[in-house]
Amino acid sequence: MPKLWNETIEEHRRAVRDAVLETTATLVGEHGLRVVTMSKIAEESGIGRATLYKYFPDVESIMTAWHERQIAGHLHELAELRNGPGAPGVRLERVLEAYALIQQRRHGHGAELGALLHRGERVAGAERHLRHFLRDLLAEGVRAGEIRDDVSPDELAGYCLHALGAAGGLPSKAAVRRLVAVTVAGLRPQA
Amino acid sequence: MPKLWNETIEEHRRAVRDAVLETTATLVGEHGLRVVTMSKIAEESGIGRATLYKYFPDVESIMTAWHERQIAGHLHELAELRNGPGAPGVRLERVLEAYALIQQRRHGHGAELGALLHRGERVAGAERHLRHFLRDLLAEGVRAGEIRDDVSPDELAGYCLHALGAAGGLPSKAAVRRLVAVTVAGLRPQA
Repeated sequence: MPKLWNETIEEHRRAVRDAVLETTATLVGEHGLRVVTMSKIAEESGIGRATLYKYFPDVESIMTAWHERQIAGHLHELAELRNGPGAPGVRLERVLEAYALIQQRRHGHGAELGALLHRGERVAGAERHLRHFLRDLLAEGVRAGEIRDDVSPDELAGYCLHALGAAGGLPSKAAVRRLVAVTVAGLRPQA
Repeated sequence: MPKLWNETIEEHRRAVRDAVLETTATLVGEHGLRVVTMSKIAEESGIGRATLYKYFPDVESIMTAWHERQIAGHLHELAELRNGPGAPGVRLERVLEAYALIQQRRHGHGAELGALLHRGERVAGAERHLRHFLRDLLAEGVRAGEIRDDVSPDELAGYCLHALGAAGGLPSKAAVRRLVAVTVAGLRPQA
């Protein structure tokens, strides 16, 4: 019985937290970081201000939590594509396209938010994780003869992540796909 | 006669200014931005403190002037390579390698300096200039059949600049050249 009770509490807490994150991200997206207040977030989330402060000390900490949840979601999405069906080269292309589309969407959030959220050890950790992840998939591609073997998978991973950063400035999904095609062409075994 | 006199004054001013820029860049490179003072700069440049303040109000403004001079020098270097001999594809490769080596050296100056210097409209202007410059060279390459024509030269220029940003994390010139080779492979006409 106590366990069930605890689970219910836990579930409730997670639901409140998720509602706060979603509400805040929406408000910041609409109005900008500077004008969104804790009172406004409490009001729009439908919880009391005092309750909100039990969860988060300020707007910045809510946005950091939201961003961390986004990053975890993205890494999960990329891992699913890596673990999906197909030859390494095909899975790599799916992962790179998904990553480039994430970069493009992220750019839409604006420079203000980007500057705030891109400090922080958590983001650096996610970037390292992603680089290792790509490196392993590239190494698989090298063994399958689908990826060039004259440059190390680690250097190729760095190339991919930087090249696909260009997606941030692109206006359409079609342009992102062309960027992925160009980037992947650089990875192929050379005649 | 007055003209000659003015020219001498102008030459003298430029020499002092250049000495201050060089001295400051060296001091900051050796000791870091935070510990370099105007007094130290005056002392090492061999000019009086009062004279130094006639040229620059603070260390940050000296470093900004130094950086602007660096950028102008880099753009000049890249323009010379573009205007040199050879087919567009060959000149493009020279330009891209020089750009990547600049990115690698720049990274060596450390994050502190990078964060200070990479704000500012002057840098954004230089980046736009470089992108237009590359776009024109890529368009020349397309006309010569050396560069793929299924993606616009402007998008290809964005890809190049981002991909070569990876040079900042590379440990050797050999690694930079491999990065350039991979990036250029992405630009070639596709079978």
